[in-house]
Amino acid sequence: MASSQEHTVKAFDQDIGQLRGLISQMGGLAEAAIGNAMLALQRGDHELAAQVRADDKKIDAIQHEVERAVVRIIALRAPMANDLREVVAALKIATVVERIGDYAKNIAKRVPQIESEHRIDPISTLPAMARMASDMVRDVLDAFAARDPDAAIAICERDDALDDFYDSIFRTLVTYMVENPKTISQCAHLLFVAKHLERIGDHATNVAEMIHFAAHGTPIAERDRSDDVATSPFSSRS
Amino acid sequence: MASSQEHTVKAFDQDIGQLRGLISQMGGLAEAAIGNAMLALQRGDHELAAQVRADDKKIDAIQHEVERAVVRIIALRAPMANDLREVVAALKIATVVERIGDYAKNIAKRVPQIESEHRIDPISTLPAMARMASDMVRDVLDAFAARDPDAAIAICERDDALDDFYDSIFRTLVTYMVENPKTISQCAHLLFVAKHLERIGDHATNVAEMIHFAAHGTPIAERDRSDDVATSPFSSRS
Repeated sequence: MASSQEHTVKAFDQDIGQLRGLISQMGGLAEAAIGNAMLALQRGDHELAAQVRADDKKIDAIQHEVERAVVRIIALRAPMANDLREVVAALKIATVVERIGDYAKNIAKRVPQIESEHRIDPISTLPAMARMASDMVRDVLDAFAARDPDAAIAICERDDALDDFYDSIFRTLVTYMVENPKTISQCAHLLFVAKHLERIGDHATNVAEMIHFAAHGTPIAERDRSDDVATSPFSSRS
Repeated sequence: MASSQEHTVKAFDQDIGQLRGLISQMGGLAEAAIGNAMLALQRGDHELAAQVRADDKKIDAIQHEVERAVVRIIALRAPMANDLREVVAALKIATVVERIGDYAKNIAKRVPQIESEHRIDPISTLPAMARMASDMVRDVLDAFAARDPDAAIAICERDDALDDFYDSIFRTLVTYMVENPKTISQCAHLLFVAKHLERIGDHATNVAEMIHFAAHGTPIAERDRSDDVATSPFSSRS
């Protein structure tokens, strides 16, 4: 009887290991997508942008694989309590990573819309923001792989810095648009690129919260996330 | 033995009924949030906007309740096959509806940022787009409650119309910004409002696809969703 239980525990551990492996794979692809999308933006590289868009299907495919694996694990192993929460967390995290991949794809989609002849200065501020967001994705998925819920807390604090970065880029772009009305259309797309990067950071933070909750059963202490809305140069911070 | 099986089936049906009820509740709150956020925007009503932001917590609370209920149902009923897929679908749909509520909250957050003294004409185009998006949310959740996967297909077609609406508003706003540079900051926020509405439509479409997949086991026929990127007046449609 004992060896049968051991067999079941080992089988479940293998299953969870498989889920974690798939999520790590997705994470690597999502990080690469962010990097390549930003490179394509910097260079005005339509081919690389098209490649990012095509590669997004791989991320979606792995997310579907995670979903099928989760349903199979639940049916076969009947996990309870912590094990069940871990499986549900894996399902939710895979969904979030797929969304991060979508934001990278959306950045790539905008590359053809951003005129490459007249270099728009504010473009040069975006790669640093992209690296911050991409590092948050990498680190939160490392925390997931290492089963380190406390590393997850640090990700949330970095999200505040990323939001500040977004606010600053928003103001810079609005000022630039006022001074260079011929670039308004392209700058509007850059506003969205900055917003996509800010959302990637938010999603990394969501994953951190899922990791923490799955491990501790409590949410990370309530943060007042007055995010999403950049202040304009004409009104005070709300 | 037969009556014990009947008891189990009845208990599971009750559980699924509970999940569906919670999701309907969330849906109603999300629709109200979209309507109130747009009303607050039209009126420049900061109080109503603050109310929408506060009410978002109710949507989040129900989503957490769905999650706990799903874990409990899986643990207690050990659902198999179709039943298990239905429970997983409910979990995923609740997550998407919570995101729709977030977009409504984000629209409300921008109300203070959009100066109310100088009426910006393009604001008047947004309520029609909001109604389209909100109707998609209402109808897809009706399809879920009625277990009608074919109604779900119709939602996807409406998403194309919503994307066209977004493209048109994008162009209108860019033109307006060029002609009225003093309004660039506020118009940037309106661009995001339009984008939030377009994303709400996308999410309603995601729910439609989940309903269809849970019922038929196959995705809705591949749609080329060249969404998200509006064309500028200066370049041809990509």
